[in-house]
Amino acid sequence: MSLVVVGSVAYDAIETPHGKRERTLGGACTYIALSASYFTRANIVAVVGGDFEASDRALLASRNIDLQGLEEVPGKTFFWSGVYSNDMNDRRTLQTDLNVFADFQPKLPASYQDEPYLLLGNIQPALQSDVHRQMKQLRFAGGDTMNYWINDYRAQLVETIRTWDFLLINDSEAKLLAGETNLRKAASKILAMGPNTLVIKRGEYGAMLFRHDTLFMIPGYLLEEVHDPTGAGDCFAGGFVGYLAQQGFDLRNGNIDVQDLHRAVIYGSVMGSFCCEEFGVDRFNTLSRKEIDQRFEEFRRFTAF
Amino acid sequence: MSLVVVGSVAYDAIETPHGKRERTLGGACTYIALSASYFTRANIVAVVGGDFEASDRALLASRNIDLQGLEEVPGKTFFWSGVYSNDMNDRRTLQTDLNVFADFQPKLPASYQDEPYLLLGNIQPALQSDVHRQMKQLRFAGGDTMNYWINDYRAQLVETIRTWDFLLINDSEAKLLAGETNLRKAASKILAMGPNTLVIKRGEYGAMLFRHDTLFMIPGYLLEEVHDPTGAGDCFAGGFVGYLAQQGFDLRNGNIDVQDLHRAVIYGSVMGSFCCEEFGVDRFNTLSRKEIDQRFEEFRRFTAF
Repeated sequence: MSLVVVGSVAYDAIETPHGKRERTLGGACTYIALSASYFTRANIVAVVGGDFEASDRALLASRNIDLQGLEEVPGKTFFWSGVYSNDMNDRRTLQTDLNVFADFQPKLPASYQDEPYLLLGNIQPALQSDVHRQMKQLRFAGGDTMNYWINDYRAQLVETIRTWDFLLINDSEAKLLAGETNLRKAASKILAMGPNTLVIKRGEYGAMLFRHDTLFMIPGYLLEEVHDPTGAGDCFAGGFVGYLAQQGFDLRNGNIDVQDLHRAVIYGSVMGSFCCEEFGVDRFNTLSRKEIDQRFEEFRRFTAF
Repeated sequence: MSLVVVGSVAYDAIETPHGKRERTLGGACTYIALSASYFTRANIVAVVGGDFEASDRALLASRNIDLQGLEEVPGKTFFWSGVYSNDMNDRRTLQTDLNVFADFQPKLPASYQDEPYLLLGNIQPALQSDVHRQMKQLRFAGGDTMNYWINDYRAQLVETIRTWDFLLINDSEAKLLAGETNLRKAASKILAMGPNTLVIKRGEYGAMLFRHDTLFMIPGYLLEEVHDPTGAGDCFAGGFVGYLAQQGFDLRNGNIDVQDLHRAVIYGSVMGSFCCEEFGVDRFNTLSRKEIDQRFEEFRRFTAF
């Protein structure tokens, strides 16, 4: 019941109103895999340079993440730096050095090809399709994208997501993709583009799940302190798909419980909230499954009526 | 079990991406009373000019709203005009003519003084206090305020809300009042200022209720079409307090059910959502209690897990 995750592994320099880090482990694939690892085994497909630290590899391994697909090539690991606004709802990119990521051609280890769950992090749509095609026993597959691909690679992106079971994007991306400012209408248009399950993330404002047979909405978990929102959306994705993998959610064979999808959205939101509590991936050094389940129950208490 | 509502009755000129109205009934007191009237009898305290239309008076009367406290004086009714942004999350005021509202001194009819529920719409804090003091049998009293009073009448406002049971404001106002950007911390500070119940409205993103004994959060109801958001926050307030009045919520005598407060937040949100479906108060020409209860149940379906 394990999950294949494709995307970036990076080093980030981050500044928020709560502090600054010059170089900390990051990247969508990293956050997704760390988050999903609390629910299922995660198998990553990514590339790093010769500067990738043994301690970072050890953190991933400590979460039982399969690193066979983590390719190391000469050169430097993808580097990103950014500064957050005072309320942390906006961020400005200062620097993006693709480095070894510029030539990333995902190589799927043979042992991954029969896994049932696939989460394609935000990379070029053609590469996402390339990996998707190599998977043979999928039960639930999909991924993320971003404004850049929606604007400049629209045809390729539309062709890519046509075969996905789920798409996980934020609200501004959903509006952009659908060409529609009303989210309910945007969701209908996107569901007509292929994915039968659409999750729209709204940051601190929560998330929504759209399908032909259900609509589910939740507020965001209200944190006392947000130290660093970097990776929260990817941790959401990892919690969402990770929980479904744990449940053996089997869309292709029709063995699904819509309530599992609702609970998966809550777990996604819970994982995103933990991610924000410390800088970079630091929270994953101490986070336990027990804390996760406690926050899930807290969510129930805070939203029941 | 009826409710006294104090605030503005006005004429509005409104422009949204869906259309334009040159002169339509508006004002906080109007929206609150119309909304609350689906749950309890509303008794209004407000002032209008000689230009107040018989048809508008008839609309209020048709909802069984007590108009003894609607004073008519020579001059023109309060007039406001504004234009909404494309996504309707922002609006620009074009014109504010206070007219007869400039000298508004709320006069509480003797028959209102023993009512158990009081909702003080957004007016000068000293006037809110003045009305509050005249009420003799209160079970649950509070109101709304805005940036202007928080910034320029802070001492008077703080003195006013000190004796309120509840405060109902939006998220930016809560942050401003508390001097705190984190909503959870802002809420703690505000609860220490007097009100034991704080409702923070977040527009399309939902609402939150804070008390020492509970935290409750809901997403916004997702409308297919928002025609005009004017009055949505006031309709929220009317639904919130109206439902509690219907339930006989009795804070002063400790006869309260926290779940009633949660349900009141849902009813508030439901009423705000209906308000947005048509221009001005138009939706209240056709809205039925049955539709309200259906949307309440829809809310449950969309948020249960």
